[in-house]
Amino acid sequence: MKLARPLKRLTESLERLPGIGPRTAKRLAFYLLHVPQSELTELAESIENLKKETVLCTICKNVSETDPCPICSDSTRDQSQIMVVETPLDVIVLDQTGKYKGAYHVLHGVISPLNNIGPDELYIKDLFDRALSSANPPTEIILATDPTMEGEATALYIEKEIRRRLNGTLKITRLGSGLPVGADLEYADEVTLSRAFEGRQEFS
Amino acid sequence: MKLARPLKRLTESLERLPGIGPRTAKRLAFYLLHVPQSELTELAESIENLKKETVLCTICKNVSETDPCPICSDSTRDQSQIMVVETPLDVIVLDQTGKYKGAYHVLHGVISPLNNIGPDELYIKDLFDRALSSANPPTEIILATDPTMEGEATALYIEKEIRRRLNGTLKITRLGSGLPVGADLEYADEVTLSRAFEGRQEFS
Repeated sequence: MKLARPLKRLTESLERLPGIGPRTAKRLAFYLLHVPQSELTELAESIENLKKETVLCTICKNVSETDPCPICSDSTRDQSQIMVVETPLDVIVLDQTGKYKGAYHVLHGVISPLNNIGPDELYIKDLFDRALSSANPPTEIILATDPTMEGEATALYIEKEIRRRLNGTLKITRLGSGLPVGADLEYADEVTLSRAFEGRQEFS
Repeated sequence: MKLARPLKRLTESLERLPGIGPRTAKRLAFYLLHVPQSELTELAESIENLKKETVLCTICKNVSETDPCPICSDSTRDQSQIMVVETPLDVIVLDQTGKYKGAYHVLHGVISPLNNIGPDELYIKDLFDRALSSANPPTEIILATDPTMEGEATALYIEKEIRRRLNGTLKITRLGSGLPVGADLEYADEVTLSRAFEGRQEFS
């Protein structure tokens, strides 16, 4: 007994997605058999048109329907602040806090020599062009890559390269590092505790 | 900042799938942005055509491309043995053991009064027709519903109803219940241990 071909084909496509193994793929495929055809068509069209209906904003490289994207063309936002993030998802998460009202720059990854990803594979050169622009000089670059080994290395590389190319000064900052809200001090790792200590702040 | 509409639409469709929450849906949608269009089209077509290219076998109610399905039309299999399962996935898993060479009957669910699923919502009547057929009388019905509360209740109901309707005898069996291979006796629950004891077998 083999899987019917339409099910097999779908299962194989689903298996290629991250976090979906052979069993989950099969379960999803069989689940979809019980879904009304109209919903299947809707899902199929969303997938088919995903890339056709989106572009990368030429300024910030975020995924968008329009170019420039809604953030880059929003005059109520401070376009002289640039927050550098790894992925478009980071933009959504950071913007949901409502604390930040500047612009973004999406790298689409981090420098990772082990995976053959160097600065040229990311949108880092575009960031340098923005940072050193004489037409719209930024006032602050906020490096908001993940606090992982690769994220930190990417942030350090960007900071060093901008400083090296820049005539004059530019505020370059990094997202605060320390204990997450709700964490238990007892279970925090040493590096996080050291960072929390270094980044201690006076009561205001 | 809102999610671009094509991403939002896809995320909402993915969220409806079982085991995929809002975060996973977003992660999948952004992942698909980096997949070549040809693979997206392939996935979209598999979803769109899934139900169009499959039918339920009129005999066993399994999902198939042909009617009757490859199992029901296979003359090398013993069509007088009917293994009753909950889902098409169960057929695949059971058949992979290579131990069973009979036919199947797929109920497409279990009796579950709490979810408003009674015998009429499943393919139980079709099973009775097969079991009581005078043209192709079966020699054995193997009830292979899950060893859960609902699976057991469904098996008991089917057994009782067939016995009540039947003139004559028919072998009705249930899959063996006990300790799974590789299990640790220490961690087995009481019901499983009781079943294992009741179902003990002589060394052969």
